Amino acid sequence: MPIYKAPVDDTLFILNDVLGIERYHNLPGFADVTPDMTAAILGEAAKLAEEVLFPINLSGDQEGCKRHEDGSVTVPKGFKEAYDLYREGGWLGLAAPEEFGGQGLPYTLHTAVGEFMSAANMSLMMYPGLTQGAIAAILVHGSEEQKRAYLPKMVDGTWTGTMNLTEPHCGTDLGLLRTKAVPNGDGSYRISGQKIFISAGEHDMAENVVHLVLARIEGAPDGVKGISLFIVPKFKLDASGEPGERNGVSCGAIEHKMGIHGNATCVMNYDEATGYLIGTENKGLSAMFVMMNEARLAVGMQGLSIAEVAYQNAASYARERIQGRSLSGPKAPDKKADPIIVHPDIRRTLMTIRAFNEGGRAFTLWTALKSDIAHRSDSEEERQTADDILSLMTPILKGVLTDKGFDHAVMAQQVFGGHGYIEEHGMSQYVRDARIAMIYEGANGIQALDLVGRKLAMNGGRAVMALFKEIGDFCEENRGDEKLSGYTKALKKGLNDLQAATMWFMQNAMAKPDNAGAGSTDYMHLFGLVVLGYMWARMAKTAEEKLAAGETQRADYLKNKLITARFFMERILPETELRKIRIETGADTMMALDAAAF
Amino acid sequence: MPIYKAPVDDTLFILNDVLGIERYHNLPGFADVTPDMTAAILGEAAKLAEEVLFPINLSGDQEGCKRHEDGSVTVPKGFKEAYDLYREGGWLGLAAPEEFGGQGLPYTLHTAVGEFMSAANMSLMMYPGLTQGAIAAILVHGSEEQKRAYLPKMVDGTWTGTMNLTEPHCGTDLGLLRTKAVPNGDGSYRISGQKIFISAGEHDMAENVVHLVLARIEGAPDGVKGISLFIVPKFKLDASGEPGERNGVSCGAIEHKMGIHGNATCVMNYDEATGYLIGTENKGLSAMFVMMNEARLAVGMQGLSIAEVAYQNAASYARERIQGRSLSGPKAPDKKADPIIVHPDIRRTLMTIRAFNEGGRAFTLWTALKSDIAHRSDSEEERQTADDILSLMTPILKGVLTDKGFDHAVMAQQVFGGHGYIEEHGMSQYVRDARIAMIYEGANGIQALDLVGRKLAMNGGRAVMALFKEIGDFCEENRGDEKLSGYTKALKKGLNDLQAATMWFMQNAMAKPDNAGAGSTDYMHLFGLVVLGYMWARMAKTAEEKLAAGETQRADYLKNKLITARFFMERILPETELRKIRIETGADTMMALDAAAF
Repeated sequence: MPIYKAPVDDTLFILNDVLGIERYHNLPGFADVTPDMTAAILGEAAKLAEEVLFPINLSGDQEGCKRHEDGSVTVPKGFKEAYDLYREGGWLGLAAPEEFGGQGLPYTLHTAVGEFMSAANMSLMMYPGLTQGAIAAILVHGSEEQKRAYLPKMVDGTWTGTMNLTEPHCGTDLGLLRTKAVPNGDGSYRISGQKIFISAGEHDMAENVVHLVLARIEGAPDGVKGISLFIVPKFKLDASGEPGERNGVSCGAIEHKMGIHGNATCVMNYDEATGYLIGTENKGLSAMFVMMNEARLAVGMQGLSIAEVAYQNAASYARERIQGRSLSGPKAPDKKADPIIVHPDIRRTLMTIRAFNEGGRAFTLWTALKSDIAHRSDSEEERQTADDILSLMTPILKGVLTDKGFDHAVMAQQVFGGHGYIEEHGMSQYVRDARIAMIYEGANGIQALDLVGRKLAMNGGRAVMALFKEIGDFCEENRGDEKLSGYTKALKKGLNDLQAATMWFMQNAMAKPDNAGAGSTDYMHLFGLVVLGYMWARMAKTAEEKLAAGETQRADYLKNKLITARFFMERILPETELRKIRIETGADTMMALDAAAF
Repeated sequence: MPIYKAPVDDTLFILNDVLGIERYHNLPGFADVTPDMTAAILGEAAKLAEEVLFPINLSGDQEGCKRHEDGSVTVPKGFKEAYDLYREGGWLGLAAPEEFGGQGLPYTLHTAVGEFMSAANMSLMMYPGLTQGAIAAILVHGSEEQKRAYLPKMVDGTWTGTMNLTEPHCGTDLGLLRTKAVPNGDGSYRISGQKIFISAGEHDMAENVVHLVLARIEGAPDGVKGISLFIVPKFKLDASGEPGERNGVSCGAIEHKMGIHGNATCVMNYDEATGYLIGTENKGLSAMFVMMNEARLAVGMQGLSIAEVAYQNAASYARERIQGRSLSGPKAPDKKADPIIVHPDIRRTLMTIRAFNEGGRAFTLWTALKSDIAHRSDSEEERQTADDILSLMTPILKGVLTDKGFDHAVMAQQVFGGHGYIEEHGMSQYVRDARIAMIYEGANGIQALDLVGRKLAMNGGRAVMALFKEIGDFCEENRGDEKLSGYTKALKKGLNDLQAATMWFMQNAMAKPDNAGAGSTDYMHLFGLVVLGYMWARMAKTAEEKLAAGETQRADYLKNKLITARFFMERILPETELRKIRIETGADTMMALDAAAF
């Protein structure tokens, strides 16, 4: 039977000790965030994740969603009851504005909770996850009337939301989209067209589904400059604001997917459905990006979530499965064989995943905190500085944590040998579920291109220069500390590779943009390694300080943190140089073949 | 619709031009292997693969195998008819001894053909694939009577074979196995126990299934020294040698697997089934290793096969899917967008897979040729030298080509974006199918351990030293050639890293074996990179020579070969240094955590 235990202690260490979240008590919503309250919230979240969401994860995968002849969709057994508990617990609105029924707590806390929930049941958590994105778009771009009409019911989870972008011929390149919007004359529009890959598109867990749909208003310009965003509710709201008449939108099919079977990924057909414009005509893309940026962080976190639950199961199996003997002599002489955790190659696997997960957790929460500061600080300068880092980190967090999250689910599956390939153990599900996170909300190649093509040069490179300085300063400040110099030396080497690669782009990609594209994925991973290295160096510093201050209660935890930090520096961070070498080879060889020769 | 075209031309280039297979005409079975005949055989194999096996690959995955209440198993629609054509074409016995109805042709040719067949339908090809392993074991260790009784029907495919090793509590560590054999007094045994993960264990395509079963004879020593190998036919042979009375072996269940749904992976229950000892009592493991070594090469090839078919589909999709514009200006201005093959990141993906596939094909055929020489040469010295390399390469070929084959199936799937996640396009199947090759026939961690713990030190390091010399000499001989120096320089750098890592093991793993285990997987990949680099350098040399000699017919092919060689040297081979750095960090950090702390 698969297991999952939410990593509450590690999350508390990062929030309280590494990031010092209490220092931000002046931000709205942060006043009550004391260590006690954080621990209480995370404890409740852990309980829901472990006891309610996780037990129906594997069964949800095996049962999947069902579309009936009338176009209605039922979710797997237990999903509705679990969603109700999630909803009633107020988890969806944890960080949403109090004005619309939320609790106004930090997004950072919402993110910490989100990791647990997605690890326990990624498919189920996508229903409220998509709702979060839709809430964000309506909050930023919706009219006051739209906010009042939709947000309270979405924040409390009575209604869920979706994002409708993709069409059969149109994925990354939204300029190609054809879904049509015709004005009704009363301010509303008739929406017609087909959308595919719509997560949580139709289901039986909510009273209404609020579709946010990209469409082209009749006569609008071609390309991305002619795209508008619409609210299309499954049931139109009646005079009292309750779901009334059925709208012209329906689920035409559920996709047959490799994984996330518990989520209803739908083909959605719009047949003169009534839609309401959000924001300005032809400016739909910027409204969509509000959702998208929020969703990208959430998807990066999914990579971490699955890697964590996969890791825990691999570690547990490695402790229990006996097979062969340790290379250094029997460790369980009373048994017929040793547990496989004695084998270095199993250790290598577990330590690699562990180092990424703990580093990735810090990376995720650090980035979420930047989001809070960017949105809540009363200092313009603080907001801007935080927003710079948030924008820069978004593609890296999404791309690196999902690429690695998948790789690590595969590595964890490998620990099980043949048993990992059998569906009953759940390891196959983690691999299949994790796979989608590399694809949706912008495939990882697009994240890499967003990074090198947009984020790097943003405001004359202000963000990247500020971050390089922050990391460089950290190394400089701590290099004299004997206990930290091992970490800072490795980090500094990684930073040098990153800076050299950045410089190479500046010198070689202006004249020849293909040189940027050719190195984009390597650069994204190089950057991710350095940021993870920075997180590890900071965690090591905190752990050393706590130990030096005589903290005994968490002494073992802190010592293990230092060992894992060392593992990251020794074995993982050195990859930066290979990434740099690849980037510096440029695009020439890569682009030399005729397309027909492939 | 998925596509597949067997890479006949590339295979011919490797066999004829790079390996010069005609030079071996003195070996038994090689006399007829002229370029014309090779081309004819490969052409026929390609036709069968493309037109018969491939069209039922995706449907086979979707339908899967079915076990009925009586324990019988039916394979997916079309499998039996396709298997019959394969069987009737004599493909199973292509390299088998003529004495038993085979054609006695080179194993190298069988391997070339095998790549096409497995790419077209891996699940289906596992039925004859397992038969091959069983044939090999009976050939080497069976009695004359056993050979006469079983081999002709197995060589012609009328009967299929299986390997029964794994039990629920016993996988890698065969010493733990419990299946029991009790002498009947007439030379036969009663076999009782349960085996799991038995590929091709039960099905309706053959008249009989010949199970080769590891079991412990009553009173035999504990551990691997008490294991014997038995033939247990599904139907006992009657006086005329035909399938007669049903034996006490049955399929208890079909496993629910992540992939290879078209192959019946069975739980096999032995209930006093009649079995016949192969070879000597308690020496079953060495007989099993005959099958295993053969199977490991075949599994490595599966990694290549799936990566090839996945690559072809990704390349085709990348040429056809229009989305976005080239970074260097529109390439298809008449269309609303450019085909995505214009994007460097898509090129990076395709070139990476291509470089591994073409290099891996050379690696596989070069190793298969060593097998032919090791088994067929009349020179003791030639046999020994070839066998050394074959033994050394077996774990590397299996581990590296399956790890990379899977990674590359994932990369190819990524080219499809969201469409790759939908089962209809077939990319998910390639990923799910490729995954098992990293696990079965010895999980890749075990391959790595076999390499560092056994193969490296074999005969005082004779094999590894001979190969280092061969590669070093190649670099030395060609370094003066201006056209080749780029390749040899990169290869020499990789070889230096490999030699340094080898030296590090010699100095650090004797006293502390965990240091070998800790670096084993990195070492296996480091070694694989250098061997692939050697293959690429040899292919580049051949291509340069052909072009210099004025070959025009394949000029484009040869030029593309050189570009791909450059790509491998620039972007892939430099990974050797990272692998070396990891190896040199040793086991200390990796082993520092308490097992309970994971």
